[in-house]
Amino acid sequence: MPLSEIRITLPAWVERFVAWQEPCVSAEARMALAIGLARANVEGGTGGPFGAAVFDLVTHRPVAVGVNLVQSAQNAVLHAEIVALMLAQATLGRYTLNAPGLNPHALVTSCEPCAMCLGALLWSGVRELECGATRADAARIGFDEGPVFAASYAYLAARGVGVRLEVRRAAAAAVLEDYRQSDGTIYNG
Amino acid sequence: MPLSEIRITLPAWVERFVAWQEPCVSAEARMALAIGLARANVEGGTGGPFGAAVFDLVTHRPVAVGVNLVQSAQNAVLHAEIVALMLAQATLGRYTLNAPGLNPHALVTSCEPCAMCLGALLWSGVRELECGATRADAARIGFDEGPVFAASYAYLAARGVGVRLEVRRAAAAAVLEDYRQSDGTIYNG
Repeated sequence: MPLSEIRITLPAWVERFVAWQEPCVSAEARMALAIGLARANVEGGTGGPFGAAVFDLVTHRPVAVGVNLVQSAQNAVLHAEIVALMLAQATLGRYTLNAPGLNPHALVTSCEPCAMCLGALLWSGVRELECGATRADAARIGFDEGPVFAASYAYLAARGVGVRLEVRRAAAAAVLEDYRQSDGTIYNG
Repeated sequence: MPLSEIRITLPAWVERFVAWQEPCVSAEARMALAIGLARANVEGGTGGPFGAAVFDLVTHRPVAVGVNLVQSAQNAVLHAEIVALMLAQATLGRYTLNAPGLNPHALVTSCEPCAMCLGALLWSGVRELECGATRADAARIGFDEGPVFAASYAYLAARGVGVRLEVRRAAAAAVLEDYRQSDGTIYNG
């Protein structure tokens, strides 16, 4: 019988890993969390080398976080960014984080988003995207980011989404490189 | 406390709506299911005017289906295509439907996929995409499909994903038009 329900659960270590009450005022501090999640996800054996977080840009606290769960959950949609965005929307009870009365939010990701995640962040209502490693860093170890073009970023800009690239890039790319060195699986469709 | 789990559930009417054992040999027959799901989703008050299904292209039976759950689940990721792809992967227990030993699969959607869903179908391993209404049909009633370009479809083709557009387009577009006439919510990010 085909399934009619899916349950998506963060690994147990994640909740303890995050300092939920600690403000991260700088982009670098926010990125440290995303990179830390990526590294811990590999070390914990719970998924691929990618981490993400949604931050409230007024309190500067994380609202939700995500790690890559593609292999552990056998679900190709569960990139770190998708997990973080879905959990942020569930936490706030709103399908858009740009709803009236909400503070602006940022999606912080340890690596530039793939085509799927770039689309998802547009629909999520986040006002800012902050990225660590680049598309080239991901491609170097064999991960395909899909049909993302300069015009895709122009699309974000035209809708008022700010973009910061290469935040702590070296540290973020090192997680990818270490993953390759450890013979981590490269799972494209 | 931030959430660490999400549960995604199809509306109760869906399981009864689908003739799971009935082969749909033609693209038109497969599309009839996707369009039927889209219309029933609006009529049932369970979401937006979009439906999708993943079909096994050897048995021609549906493996999983999806409807738009953005508003009902307060989750902007839950486009019909994403729901169908996640449920297909869960049903088969594989993050890629292109895994060795599996039959080829098609994603059938009542409307051309947005940027997020186009990325997701690439990672899902489906070998074919079949679409009903066009991007222009969706835009006419106010839905934004995001950064999808001719180059995006070239990207699919280069990875061996076949594409059939405008399958039963008139019937598919009529669902969108009826949704507008009934003052359905247009929920962009």
